[in-house]
Amino acid sequence: MLIRDATEADWPRIWPFLREICAAGETFSYPVDLPEERAREFWMLAAPNRTVVAVGDDGTVLGTAKMNANQMGNAAHIASASYMVDPAHSGRGVGRALVDETLAWAEQQGFRGMQFNAVVATNTNAVALYESVGFRVAGTIPGGFRHPAKGYVDLLIMFRPIGADTGA
Amino acid sequence: MLIRDATEADWPRIWPFLREICAAGETFSYPVDLPEERAREFWMLAAPNRTVVAVGDDGTVLGTAKMNANQMGNAAHIASASYMVDPAHSGRGVGRALVDETLAWAEQQGFRGMQFNAVVATNTNAVALYESVGFRVAGTIPGGFRHPAKGYVDLLIMFRPIGADTGA
Repeated sequence: MLIRDATEADWPRIWPFLREICAAGETFSYPVDLPEERAREFWMLAAPNRTVVAVGDDGTVLGTAKMNANQMGNAAHIASASYMVDPAHSGRGVGRALVDETLAWAEQQGFRGMQFNAVVATNTNAVALYESVGFRVAGTIPGGFRHPAKGYVDLLIMFRPIGADTGA
Repeated sequence: MLIRDATEADWPRIWPFLREICAAGETFSYPVDLPEERAREFWMLAAPNRTVVAVGDDGTVLGTAKMNANQMGNAAHIASASYMVDPAHSGRGVGRALVDETLAWAEQQGFRGMQFNAVVATNTNAVALYESVGFRVAGTIPGGFRHPAKGYVDLLIMFRPIGADTGA
């Protein structure tokens, strides 16, 4: 598996599973019927932000991540990131590789922490993955997400410090 | 004091204190040197979102608030809001009146809660005001804000349920 910067040529290989994940409506707070052009604007970030793809040995796009400052101004030293793994390629460590890549980027860019604003509490695989690399639940919005099967479930804010001065 | 929908004609009366508050860099995560056109885009929201002004008896704009869904898709049932009170008119209940207006709007629009994503912990007047109307700290980002005088201080996520089914 290789992780590299996403190019415009990757978009047609990202969009099918990104659309599938949005349409399922279980893990992301994007519109379930997100139009392709808007999805591309949301996902394909320009520098200083960054979007990457995880690519298999045969060139298949297995997953993608985007990374950016979470806020502006005097809060711009905390990064954020989002991940989408093609459900057809889950369980192969793609998510972990993408998370590691975004943390390395954030440290290299001088961010002091990374924050996820909206982790669906029932997305237990994601929560466990994030915790395994040092994220902790920093806050909970009770009933913040309407799961299509489970009804109102909590939305978690997760955070991890970054950088030598934090001991991370 | 009257609270009403903001119009384009109000912008030139909002911009001076909005710029002043941004430039101080103590309470908002907007760029401290926010250009006017970008500030207008951030602040002057179109329906279904809403921006209001609090106006004194002589027509002076005392403060302003904007309100919107905090997330999209299956998390779009939680509102958010932001407030700016002209420092020249603080201590007159303008902030509280604006908070009340946004809560009433959110309930009328059917939101189930309101979330503030980035309350600077040292902005104790704001924290106390929000707590006085039922908000609680739902999460803390340690060192999430670089205060120009106090250095790295915490950024708070605050939340309040809305609607009859929550007992609020």
